[in-house]
Amino acid sequence: MLVEFSLQTDREGFYDISSYAAKTAAEFYRIEGKGDAECLVYCPHTTAGITINENADSDVIHDMLLGLSKAFPDRAEFRHGEGNSHAHLKASCVGSSVRVIVRDGKLLLGTWQGIYFCEFDGPRQRRYFIQIH
Amino acid sequence: MLVEFSLQTDREGFYDISSYAAKTAAEFYRIEGKGDAECLVYCPHTTAGITINENADSDVIHDMLLGLSKAFPDRAEFRHGEGNSHAHLKASCVGSSVRVIVRDGKLLLGTWQGIYFCEFDGPRQRRYFIQIH
Amino acid sequence: MLVEFSLQTDREGFYDISSYAAKTAAEFYRIEGKGDAECLVYCPHTTAGITINENADSDVIHDMLLGLSKAFPDRAEFRHGEGNSHAHLKASCVGSSVRVIVRDGKLLLGTWQGIYFCEFDGPRQRRYFIQIH
Repeated sequence: MLVEFSLQTDREGFYDISSYAAKTAAEFYRIEGKGDAECLVYCPHTTAGITINENADSDVIHDMLLGLSKAFPDRAEFRHGEGNSHAHLKASCVGSSVRVIVRDGKLLLGTWQGIYFCEFDGPRQRRYFIQIH
Repeated sequence: MLVEFSLQTDREGFYDISSYAAKTAAEFYRIEGKGDAECLVYCPHTTAGITINENADSDVIHDMLLGLSKAFPDRAEFRHGEGNSHAHLKASCVGSSVRVIVRDGKLLLGTWQGIYFCEFDGPRQRRYFIQIH
Repeated sequence: MLVEFSLQTDREGFYDISSYAAKTAAEFYRIEGKGDAECLVYCPHTTAGITINENADSDVIHDMLLGLSKAFPDRAEFRHGEGNSHAHLKASCVGSSVRVIVRDGKLLLGTWQGIYFCEFDGPRQRRYFIQIH
């Protein structure tokens, strides 16, 4: 099962999309009845990514965006005319997709884990895919 | 096939869990007889991760922990009260899971590759999942 | 379906291998006729990796290599005798594999996305695997 989602982002931010993955996994189980499955969340953009991290204290997200900007700042030596090479770097650092194990229609996320769409070069209209199989 | 493992970690460290993945892949093949399979190693924590890297010289692990701490240091501007935002950053940098191809019950790892559970905020009792299918 | 590829690299560089993944996905569909599939691109080396990023302006690749070298420089405190710990760090940062959704034999890459083999410690003869299933 493959479902496409879209979202409107700010300049940068982490957007918790766990509930959409959970709903898709439950729907897959209702239709297919397959107990042992996998969920792939995929970002088709090059200045955004997907990661799994803390879902409780939003200060963690603030700190992660800050820490990524310090590790991958804009640099005078960069050549790319759009001026968003730092965002391309962050996208490859967090990665373009995550996988979560699915059991009987439920995501096997840890207690404090959420799935995030990571915007590094917004605001933009973005999309992502959730595939269960 | 899905198996859960646990381990007791130190403050930080890379723990080679390749042999557990290899045993799970061999067991899967013995039971299912499926030649072309995949192994997912998944970490359900947000200040630890999973990576694949050098399995021969332990100095590489020393250097990687050092290099990650330099790229993602603790910062005065961080807001998260637990003081472990650097560990959350490292977790998203290495990622929460890895995939390895399985052929006839054997992991298709490169000569120098090992699978590591990466602790960035221990000591803790941790767990991880190995799924073959 | 599992196919092995090889390439000769320079000291460092990103090599666009999207067309090989696309051909393998099309071949899989021709033989198996399975509409909903997945592509795994896997690197069996520890100082190289696989990432998905911009396929249009080569300046982005220049900037990414530069940004990774700034985030993970060689350091006097490193112990590993081969002197390539920075390359091991970059390999774990970008990761050893990527996944792409396959529909009817076509990779569901975004408009600006390409799949890259990332060399961080060449020149070397390297290989990688593409698995579709």
